[in-house]
Amino acid sequence: MAQDRIATRRKKLISQLKAQHLDALLVTSVTNVRYLTGFTGDSSWLLIGPKLCVLISDGRYRTQIEEECPGLEAVIRAVDEKMSARAAAELASAKATRVGFEQDVLTIGLYDTISTASKTLELVPTQGAVEQLRQVKDSEEIAEIRIAIGLAERAFAAHRATLRPDLTEREIAHGLEHTIRGLGGVGAAFPPIVAVGDRAALPHYRAGALRVGQSGLLLVDWGAVSAGGYHSDLTRVIVTSKLSPKLEQVYGVVLKAQLAAIAEMGPGVSSRKVDSAARSVIESAGFGKYFSHGLGHGIGLEIHEAPRMSPQGETTLQPGMVITVEPGIYLPGVGGVRIEDDVLITRDGAEVLTSVPKSWESCRVDFV
Amino acid sequence: MAQDRIATRRKKLISQLKAQHLDALLVTSVTNVRYLTGFTGDSSWLLIGPKLCVLISDGRYRTQIEEECPGLEAVIRAVDEKMSARAAAELASAKATRVGFEQDVLTIGLYDTISTASKTLELVPTQGAVEQLRQVKDSEEIAEIRIAIGLAERAFAAHRATLRPDLTEREIAHGLEHTIRGLGGVGAAFPPIVAVGDRAALPHYRAGALRVGQSGLLLVDWGAVSAGGYHSDLTRVIVTSKLSPKLEQVYGVVLKAQLAAIAEMGPGVSSRKVDSAARSVIESAGFGKYFSHGLGHGIGLEIHEAPRMSPQGETTLQPGMVITVEPGIYLPGVGGVRIEDDVLITRDGAEVLTSVPKSWESCRVDFV
Repeated sequence: MAQDRIATRRKKLISQLKAQHLDALLVTSVTNVRYLTGFTGDSSWLLIGPKLCVLISDGRYRTQIEEECPGLEAVIRAVDEKMSARAAAELASAKATRVGFEQDVLTIGLYDTISTASKTLELVPTQGAVEQLRQVKDSEEIAEIRIAIGLAERAFAAHRATLRPDLTEREIAHGLEHTIRGLGGVGAAFPPIVAVGDRAALPHYRAGALRVGQSGLLLVDWGAVSAGGYHSDLTRVIVTSKLSPKLEQVYGVVLKAQLAAIAEMGPGVSSRKVDSAARSVIESAGFGKYFSHGLGHGIGLEIHEAPRMSPQGETTLQPGMVITVEPGIYLPGVGGVRIEDDVLITRDGAEVLTSVPKSWESCRVDFV
Repeated sequence: MAQDRIATRRKKLISQLKAQHLDALLVTSVTNVRYLTGFTGDSSWLLIGPKLCVLISDGRYRTQIEEECPGLEAVIRAVDEKMSARAAAELASAKATRVGFEQDVLTIGLYDTISTASKTLELVPTQGAVEQLRQVKDSEEIAEIRIAIGLAERAFAAHRATLRPDLTEREIAHGLEHTIRGLGGVGAAFPPIVAVGDRAALPHYRAGALRVGQSGLLLVDWGAVSAGGYHSDLTRVIVTSKLSPKLEQVYGVVLKAQLAAIAEMGPGVSSRKVDSAARSVIESAGFGKYFSHGLGHGIGLEIHEAPRMSPQGETTLQPGMVITVEPGIYLPGVGGVRIEDDVLITRDGAEVLTSVPKSWESCRVDFV
C-alpha cells in the first residue's frame, strides 16, 4: 500500500477534525482503521488528530503492523492492559481532551470503559467522518476495484462456459468463490446469489438446492474481493430455454432503465436523479411496484458503502466514486430480472468498469 | 429448528429478566436473535419479556420469518419507519418501561435513536445475558456441533490423502472450505490457518504462498459450519519429512499437556484449573513462555463463545458446554505445534467429540 495515499487520507481527516475543534478521533471501525493505516488485522484502534497518530494493538499483530504500516507509531498493549485504558493514557500524554468517536460503531459498553478510564476526556459523537472520505476512491483503490471486477468476470465466464442443467444453485455459488480464489482473490464479495426460476423474484435469496435445468431462467449476483481487500458486485441473467414473452419484456425494461441511469451519471449529478432515471423507465412500463429497492450503492473496502442511490439519496456524485447500478423487476412466483454493473464517476462523465455482455441475446446459454 | 428448544431458551431468559425487574430485553445481536427465534436473517431485533415476544424486521424477510419461526409474532416495519421508532412503539403498547439492552452490542448511535423515540423508556445496560445461556448446549445443538465436526474431519481426511509438496498453504485452505461445502456445510468456520515450517510459530497466521514441500512441518487449524449454523474447530500437525528432535519433543509436550487438560475436565471443575493442568505440563518442560494464549473457548453458533479457558478464567464447567482444548508451543523462527480438539462436558466427565488421530506417528504423511 503506497504510504503517500494513506498520508493523504489522514491529512484530509485531520483537517476535518480541526474544523470540528476535535483534538483527536478514536477510530474503532476495523475497515476505517485499515483505510487510514493499511493494517489488515482487527482488534486495534487508531487515535488520530493534529498532534497524534497511534495504532493501539496487541502482541499478536506486532510483526504484521511493522510489515503493513511502515513509519506508523504503534503501541502494543500488555496482555493484562485494557484497550480503553491504553487509549486513555495515549490521549492524555498527547494532551487530547476533546475526542471524537464513531457513534455508529462504538458500543455502549466500550464507551463506558473509556469514560471510566479517563475523567478528563470530553467524548464527542461523530458520524461517517471516515466513511465520507472513503466514498471517493484514489487511483490505487480504483485499480484494486478493477482487479476485483476482473476476478469476478473471469470466474463467471468459467462457470457460464461449464454450466449444466444438473448443477444446483449452491454448487454454482461455491464454484464461483473457489474459482475466484484460484485466480488469486481473497474470495467472494458476499455469498453469491444464484437463483433458478421464480427464486429470481426474491432479491434477498442466496443459493439453494434448485437445479439449473428446473427453469429456463437463472439469475446470478456475485462479486470478488481482491487480494488488496476491494470488492466488486455484478448481476447477470442467464437464459437456458425459451422464456415467457413477459420475462423477455421485463428484461428489456430493466436493461433500458439501467442504461438510462448510467447515461445520467457524472460529476455534480444528484444520486436521486440517477435513481429516478431508472425508476421512471420501469414505472412508465407499468412495473414500478416491482422495483422494490434502491438503484445502487458504493463499493470499496466493503461491499456496501456510501453513497446510496435511492429515491431518498442526497449525494452529489463526485469523480472517484464507484457505484453499482442495479435496477430490478421482481414478479412474485414468476421470476425476476436484475442487471448490475459497477460505474466509476470520472471528471467528465462515467465509466462502466464491468464488461460482461448484457444484451438479451447474450444471456442465452445452450447446453450441449 | 425444534420450537420447544427455542421456547425453553426464551423461558430461561425471561426468568432472568424477571429477577432483574426488567419488563423486556432488546436483543440486537444477530446471533442472539437467531438463538432465541431460529431466524437466520439479519437487521432484525427481538423484544422479549414476561409480557411480550416480538421480532421486528423488514419486508425482505417476511417469507423467511414465516418459514423459520412458526408461531412467533413478527412486525414488518414500513420502509420509511425506523427500527428504533417501531421498537419504542411495540414496547409502549406492551407497557414495558424498564428495558434492558445488550451493552456490548448496541452502538451509541442506536442507543440515542431509541432514547429519542421514547421519553418514557428506562434503558438498562445488561451484559452477556443470552451469551451465558448459549454456553450450555441442548441436545439439538450438540448434534449440530457433531455434524460440523464430521464435515471438518472428512474434509481434512480428503486433503491429507491428496497432499502434495507443490501445494501452497492457500490452496489447501481454499480446498478445505470447498470440500466442506461439497459435503453440505455452509463453509469453513473461519479462514483456515495452514502454516508451513516456521509460519507454524505464528498462532495468528492464516495461509499464504508457502509450499508444503518447503518444510517438513505443516500446521492446519480449521473448522466447519454445519447447515444449521454450528461451528467446529480443530488443529493438527502434519509431518512430511524428518523434523528436528526439538520439534518432536515439543509435540510430545503439547500432546501430554492437552491430554492432561482433557483428563481434568468435568462438571463442577473450574476452567482455570483445566488451563492450569495443560500449562503446568508445558511449564515443567521449560516451554512456559512459548504458550502465549488461553487453553480454549466455547464453540456454537459462533466460533468463539463463552466460556474461555485461561489463567484468568472464572467459569465452572457444566454439562452441555462444548469447549476447544488447544495448547500450543511456538518457537519463533523454528516452528510451532498446537493440538486442538472439541470437548463436551457431560454429567459425569467429558467426551472428546473430535476423532482425528494425534499420536506422533499419526502425524506422518509420506508423498508417493
